[in-house]
Amino acid sequence: MLYMVGLGLGDERDITLKGLDAVRSCKHVYLEAYTSLLAFGIGSSALSKLEELYGRPVMLADREMVEQSAEEILTEARSANVAFLVVGDPFGATTHSDLMVRAKRLGVEVEIIHNASVMNAVGACGLQLYRFGETISVPFFTETWRPDSFYDRIKTNRSLGLHTLCLLDIRVKEPSLEALCRGKKIYEPPKYMSINTALEQLLEIEHSRAENAYNEDTLCVGLARLGNSSQKIVAGSMKSLLAVDFGPPLHCVIIAGQTHVMEEEMLAFFKIDGAHAHS
Amino acid sequence: MLYMVGLGLGDERDITLKGLDAVRSCKHVYLEAYTSLLAFGIGSSALSKLEELYGRPVMLADREMVEQSAEEILTEARSANVAFLVVGDPFGATTHSDLMVRAKRLGVEVEIIHNASVMNAVGACGLQLYRFGETISVPFFTETWRPDSFYDRIKTNRSLGLHTLCLLDIRVKEPSLEALCRGKKIYEPPKYMSINTALEQLLEIEHSRAENAYNEDTLCVGLARLGNSSQKIVAGSMKSLLAVDFGPPLHCVIIAGQTHVMEEEMLAFFKIDGAHAHS
Repeated sequence: MLYMVGLGLGDERDITLKGLDAVRSCKHVYLEAYTSLLAFGIGSSALSKLEELYGRPVMLADREMVEQSAEEILTEARSANVAFLVVGDPFGATTHSDLMVRAKRLGVEVEIIHNASVMNAVGACGLQLYRFGETISVPFFTETWRPDSFYDRIKTNRSLGLHTLCLLDIRVKEPSLEALCRGKKIYEPPKYMSINTALEQLLEIEHSRAENAYNEDTLCVGLARLGNSSQKIVAGSMKSLLAVDFGPPLHCVIIAGQTHVMEEEMLAFFKIDGAHAHS
Repeated sequence: MLYMVGLGLGDERDITLKGLDAVRSCKHVYLEAYTSLLAFGIGSSALSKLEELYGRPVMLADREMVEQSAEEILTEARSANVAFLVVGDPFGATTHSDLMVRAKRLGVEVEIIHNASVMNAVGACGLQLYRFGETISVPFFTETWRPDSFYDRIKTNRSLGLHTLCLLDIRVKEPSLEALCRGKKIYEPPKYMSINTALEQLLEIEHSRAENAYNEDTLCVGLARLGNSSQKIVAGSMKSLLAVDFGPPLHCVIIAGQTHVMEEEMLAFFKIDGAHAHS
């Protein structure tokens, strides 16, 4: 049996009782380490906290390892319980469909244990989930690569009055250019896009496209470390959020569409000037 | 402190460790009983399972009670820990924003403990969450009330190639017409819309609107009891799903937009004819 277990967003105690039961029944436990890793503070101390809680050694599985060792993991899962742990939900922002498809093709039983992910926890800011349009991902601009295909999606969402959740780029274990040239395995330090960088890039694109999908006065909500005890949610104009220090990753940002009364009442608690709806 | 604790989708063991810690620290524990109630099998036996796990009495709070007794609940929360338990996530399909706004206005500290909800767990069928458009709700038709405003939203989503999650009507503790006339509190038995009813209604609307937002050959995914051990997911044309017995509530249905290769590989495992992508 392959258990794909969502760990939620905060720390090791965001696992469900069902998830914990499953992990404790497993011979091998893998933790996907290629997304959202930092969200969870998966340093050595966080890892040992997990191991202590589970009573099992936990093997960090980066993208390379999952791709290369999937057969091995799945072969283990044919004769024993194996857990593949995912920060958030197994089918959250980053899907783990590929591992599941491979498992099912090999006739390995798969059980999914769901948990919160950024895709539903963003509701905490007060914007209602059913009023979101298509979710977009904002990649880091480079000197030569400044993609803007998501601009049209934001524009469409906004024209429909819908909110847009923007997931921000995470670069973990990217081979450095030098490494690529020399064929060596040297990695860039991990990079996590901040809300500030995302907003700068978004405004740059609006400036060049000039189709008025949004502007610096558009209401946005920045969410840092969502679901964690140090979570920081601030609502305000794009311009005003540019100056906010949201602290460590992970960050995401919502570009608001039309807001309803109840949404505004909730958002008021997160407004940058601290003004409350009732004040 | 008011804890708003998501219970997830399956049973009492889908609470997170953090959620359980919170509930066990509480003097008063309320369970919202006006949505998704049946999903969780909240009959008397399920309720006593919760009470046993928590070591606390759990008070069922229906909509009426929450609206009438919010002040009381919140007054309790000023001097003691109070838990308000919600099936799914506190800010899932049904928001509990109102209680939170009231709490914050009274200066009561609120802590949200997230969990899976239908809004992210639908990813289990293989359709990717970031490719969903606006979510719609399908209400029960009556003789005189056959609303179709969601038709335009489906049409928009489909024209953008996006999937549409359709949440299906739940009628719990609706006063009967007779009761309304007589001013008595008599309630209709609870009603949960099935996937079959939803599809019939959807096809009826397409028939009358005839704008080709979808048709009986459109790929849909029916999901019953999502996240529960008896979960049933079936993918197929609208027409073919009409004949599927999905069993007890809760149901929801996805009208697919354009599907990508990875989505199709996953969906193949749920196809109505049982045909797998690799066969």
